[in-house]
Amino acid sequence: MIDVDIKTMPDLQSSPDQRKLLINKVGVKDLRYPFRFMDKDYCVAELIGKFNIFVELPENQRGTHMSRFVEVLHEQQEVITVKNFANFTHYISKKFDSDCAYITLDFAYLRRKLAPISLTESFLDYKIILTAHKEGQNLQRWVTIAVPVTTLCPCSKKISQFGAHNQRSIITIKALLHEAIWLDDLIELAENQASCDLYGILKRPDEKYVTEKAYNNPKFVEDLVRDIALELKNNQKIKAFTVEVENFESIHNHSAYAMIQNDREVG
Amino acid sequence: MIDVDIKTMPDLQSSPDQRKLLINKVGVKDLRYPFRFMDKDYCVAELIGKFNIFVELPENQRGTHMSRFVEVLHEQQEVITVKNFANFTHYISKKFDSDCAYITLDFAYLRRKLAPISLTESFLDYKIILTAHKEGQNLQRWVTIAVPVTTLCPCSKKISQFGAHNQRSIITIKALLHEAIWLDDLIELAENQASCDLYGILKRPDEKYVTEKAYNNPKFVEDLVRDIALELKNNQKIKAFTVEVENFESIHNHSAYAMIQNDREVG
Amino acid sequence: MIDVDIKTMPDLQSSPDQRKLLINKVGVKDLRYPFRFMDKDYCVAELIGKFNIFVELPENQRGTHMSRFVEVLHEQQEVITVKNFANFTHYISKKFDSDCAYITLDFAYLRRKLAPISLTESFLDYKIILTAHKEGQNLQRWVTIAVPVTTLCPCSKKISQFGAHNQRSIITIKALLHEAIWLDDLIELAENQASCDLYGILKRPDEKYVTEKAYNNPKFVEDLVRDIALELKNNQKIKAFTVEVENFESIHNHSAYAMIQNDREVG
Amino acid sequence: MIDVDIKTMPDLQSSPDQRKLLINKVGVKDLRYPFRFMDKDYCVAELIGKFNIFVELPENQRGTHMSRFVEVLHEQQEVITVKNFANFTHYISKKFDSDCAYITLDFAYLRRKLAPISLTESFLDYKIILTAHKEGQNLQRWVTIAVPVTTLCPCSKKISQFGAHNQRSIITIKALLHEAIWLDDLIELAENQASCDLYGILKRPDEKYVTEKAYNNPKFVEDLVRDIALELKNNQKIKAFTVEVENFESIHNHSAYAMIQNDREVG
Repeated sequence: MIDVDIKTMPDLQSSPDQRKLLINKVGVKDLRYPFRFMDKDYCVAELIGKFNIFVELPENQRGTHMSRFVEVLHEQQEVITVKNFANFTHYISKKFDSDCAYITLDFAYLRRKLAPISLTESFLDYKIILTAHKEGQNLQRWVTIAVPVTTLCPCSKKISQFGAHNQRSIITIKALLHEAIWLDDLIELAENQASCDLYGILKRPDEKYVTEKAYNNPKFVEDLVRDIALELKNNQKIKAFTVEVENFESIHNHSAYAMIQNDREVG
Repeated sequence: MIDVDIKTMPDLQSSPDQRKLLINKVGVKDLRYPFRFMDKDYCVAELIGKFNIFVELPENQRGTHMSRFVEVLHEQQEVITVKNFANFTHYISKKFDSDCAYITLDFAYLRRKLAPISLTESFLDYKIILTAHKEGQNLQRWVTIAVPVTTLCPCSKKISQFGAHNQRSIITIKALLHEAIWLDDLIELAENQASCDLYGILKRPDEKYVTEKAYNNPKFVEDLVRDIALELKNNQKIKAFTVEVENFESIHNHSAYAMIQNDREVG
Repeated sequence: MIDVDIKTMPDLQSSPDQRKLLINKVGVKDLRYPFRFMDKDYCVAELIGKFNIFVELPENQRGTHMSRFVEVLHEQQEVITVKNFANFTHYISKKFDSDCAYITLDFAYLRRKLAPISLTESFLDYKIILTAHKEGQNLQRWVTIAVPVTTLCPCSKKISQFGAHNQRSIITIKALLHEAIWLDDLIELAENQASCDLYGILKRPDEKYVTEKAYNNPKFVEDLVRDIALELKNNQKIKAFTVEVENFESIHNHSAYAMIQNDREVG
Repeated sequence: MIDVDIKTMPDLQSSPDQRKLLINKVGVKDLRYPFRFMDKDYCVAELIGKFNIFVELPENQRGTHMSRFVEVLHEQQEVITVKNFANFTHYISKKFDSDCAYITLDFAYLRRKLAPISLTESFLDYKIILTAHKEGQNLQRWVTIAVPVTTLCPCSKKISQFGAHNQRSIITIKALLHEAIWLDDLIELAENQASCDLYGILKRPDEKYVTEKAYNNPKFVEDLVRDIALELKNNQKIKAFTVEVENFESIHNHSAYAMIQNDREVG
C-alpha cells in the first residue's frame, strides 16, 4: 500500500530561497479549460479556452504550488464577461497571498452575421485574448481581438486597366480598458474600416456586393491601420491601444504589415 | 443601387466542363463552426469545431456551390454523437445530388478526471477528429483520438543506478468503426496501457503515486504501441485501425515514434 | 566514477517479444538536421531539414535502437537530389538488417525568380517533402511540393461591374515518380496554370502586369486543380499523383478546396 | 501590349496624408530569405531565415514602398553575425530616409555536440531571433535564444520511494546586448544550469549518464529560471534580459512556467 499522508510529506516549494531573486511570473501555461462567456447578446456560451495564470514569487520563497492555480480555475463558477474577467486576479491573489496576479484567456468567439443582400445568416469566428494584471491595488485589463477582413490595394487599382489585387487580412487590436467594452462593438469598429468585411455564407448577389464594395473602397495596410487608430482614439472606453494590420498579400508569399501604438503602456 | 436579382445572374459553376476529369473532393476547409456534442455522460456540450465538407464533382460539371456546404451545416440542429455523426453525409449528398460526400470535424474534448489518491476533480483535454465518408450506399465512419500520457524508458531504468527518463507522449488512434464507441471508452483503453496517465490537478500524494506508478511500469514506444494494438484488435466495435505513439523524448530534441496499422483501409 | 562498460550493459531492445505483432514503422520523428541539396541549377545548397526515419520491426523483437537512425544520417555525406534521395533507405535497411525502410525529408526550397516586366531578381520559397519507401526489392519515391499562387474568382468577375475577389492559394502536388524530376520543373508546371504566380519583389510595372494577368485569367479552385491534373497526367516521369488546391478566400474566413487523386497508390 | 512606363505611373504611396498619425512600424513580415551566418567556430553557414523589416512612417506620408525592403535584403551580401547584424538597420534607414528602422531575423541554428561518455558527435537545433532597432542615433540589439533541456522535479524525487518525473523544457533568453556575444556561449550558459542538457545521439553509456545526472540535479521551473538569471546578471555583455522556462510537464497536459525580467526595457 502506498503511503499518502500529506501532513508528513515534505513541502520543498515552501522552503526558503537564498538566491535573492524575485520571480516576476510563475504558474501554469497553456491549460485548456472550460468556461462560460457572455457578450452583448446576453447569450451564455460554454467555451473551451487556453489559460495562463501567474503570480509573482517573492525572493525568499523557493517555489509556488502549481496545483492551486488549476484549483482556483476549477472552482470558478461565474459567467465570464469582458467586465468581470479581471476579478479572477483577486481570487488568485487571495489563494496565493500574493500582491500580483496575472491571467490571460485565449479563445475563439463566434458571432452571427447576415449576408449584406440576401440576409442569409451564418457565423464568423474571431480570436480573442482577455488579459488582467493585478499589481497591489492597481488593476489593468486588456482585450485583444483578431478580426479577419478583406483589403484591396489602391496602387494596384490605380495603375491597372482593370481589376486590383485583394486578400484576406487580419486586424489585431490590443486595448487597455478604462471601462468594459462589448467584443461585438470592437469587431464592428474594425470591420467598418476594412475594404470589406467577411462572411460565412455569401450567395451570388452578396458576392457581387462585396466584390464591388471592396473595389470602391481600396486601402493600403497603412490606410487601414490609421483609420482604425482614429476610431480607437475617439473611444472613451479605451485608455491605450496597439493596432496591427497584416495583409496576406495575394501577389507575394510574405505579408505587408503596419502597427500603431498610442501608448507605451501597451506592450 | 446595386442590381441583385439572382435569377438573372450568370451561374458559371453549373456550366459544363470539357476537361473530362472527375474531382474526388471539392468543398470548404477549415470552417470554424458551433455544434452540440454528447458522449457517455449524456451531457450535451456546446463546442466549436473545425469542419471540412466535400463532395465528388462529376467530370461534366465545372464547379460546385460553396455557400451550400455552410448552409447545410448552419441548418443542422442535431446533437452530434459518434453514432449519428455520419448522417451528415446524407444531408450533403441530398443537397448536392451527389453520390459521394465526405466530412471531418476536428475539436477539443474535455473529460472530468479524479486524481488517483486525493480524488480531486479536474478536466483533461483530448483532440478528436470524427470522419464520415459516403460513397453510394457504402458509409464509413472513423474516430481519431489523441491521448496525452506519460512514458518511462525501460532501458534508462535498467541501466541507471537510480531514476529513469520519462516524458509526455501522444497516443493517436484512428479507428474505422463497425458500430459506435464512446470517446470515453477509447480514452480509457489508451490511458490504461501507458506508464501512467495525466491529470489537470495532482496534489502531493497523487504526485507520489503517479511517479512511482510510471517507474514501476516502464514502456518503450514499441511496447506501448503494441499493447494498445492488442486492445484494439480485441474490440468488436472496431473494424480496422492505425495506432501511433510519439514520445517527446526528455533527453533529445526529437521524437521517438511507432505505428501499427492493422488494415490497409485506414489511411 | 560512473560505470560505462557498454558490453556489460543490458540491451532490452534486443530481447524477444511475445505479443506477435509486427510494428509497421518505428524510428525517429521531427529530427532537425543539416543536409546538402542540389536541383536543376546544379548549385549545392546547405539546408536544414526535418527528417522522419523508420524501419519495420518484426514481431519477435522487442525494440529498435533509436540512436542508430541519427548515426546513419550523421554519417551521410552525399549531396541529396530528387534522384538519389531514395538511396538513403538502403543505408537504413543495411544498418538495421530490415527489409523495409521509410524516410521523409521536409524542407524549404528557395528559387530565384525575375519580376515579369522589370526583371528584378528575388527569391520565392516553397515547401518540399521528399519521401522514399523501400519494401524488399520494391522502392517507391515521392516528391511533394507546395506552390503558393494567386487565384481570381470567375464568378465574382462575371457578376460584378468591376473588380473580382482574388487571394493567395496553395497548390500541393504529391507525385509518385517513375523517374527523377527537377523541383523547378514541377514548380513551373504548377505556376503556369494559376491565375498568376507570386514574386518576392514587384515594382509598379510588374504589379500592373500581375493584376491584369490575374483578371484576364480567372480560375475556380475546381479549374485550377483540373488544369494541373491534366499536366501531371501528361508527364511521363510521374506514375501517380494527388493534387490539391486550397484558396484562402479573401471574402470568407475559411478555405475553398479541391483534390484530384489519379491513383489509389498515392495516399 | 501592356503599358509599363514607370515614370508616368501614379505613385499613391508618396501622396500626402491628412490623418496626422505616425505609423510606428510598417514593412514586410514573414519573408523567408537566404542569408549567411557565422558564429564562434568561424564556419559560415548558408541558412534560410524569416525576416520582418519595418520603418517608422511620418504622419504626413500616405504609404511606404514595400518592394524596397526586399530589395535591400536581396542586395545584402555580408556574412551575418550577432555583432554586425544591427548594421542592416542603417541600410534600411538610408534607403527609406527614415530615422527609425527595425529588423528581426528568426532562424534555426545547429550546433555540434559530443555525447557525454561515448563522445559520439551529433547536431542539436536551437531557435534564434536576432533583433535590431535603430531610433535616430540610438541602436539597440537583442538576441533571443530557445534552448531545449531536461528538468527533473525535486518534489517528485523527494516524496517518491523511487523515480522522479522529468520532461523536456524550453529555456528562452532575450538579451539586450552591451556588446556582441557568441550564440554558443549563451547556449552553454543555459544548458549548464539545467538538470541535464539534450543530445542528438546518446549511446547506452551516455543514456545512463544523462539519466543519473538529471536525477542528481533536480530543479523546479523556479530554480532553473533563477539560476540562469544569476548567470545573465553576471555577464558583462548583457545590459538587460528576460529569461523564461517552460516545462512540458510529463504528468500534466499543460506547462509549468516561470519568468524573470531584470529590466523594463526588454519587452
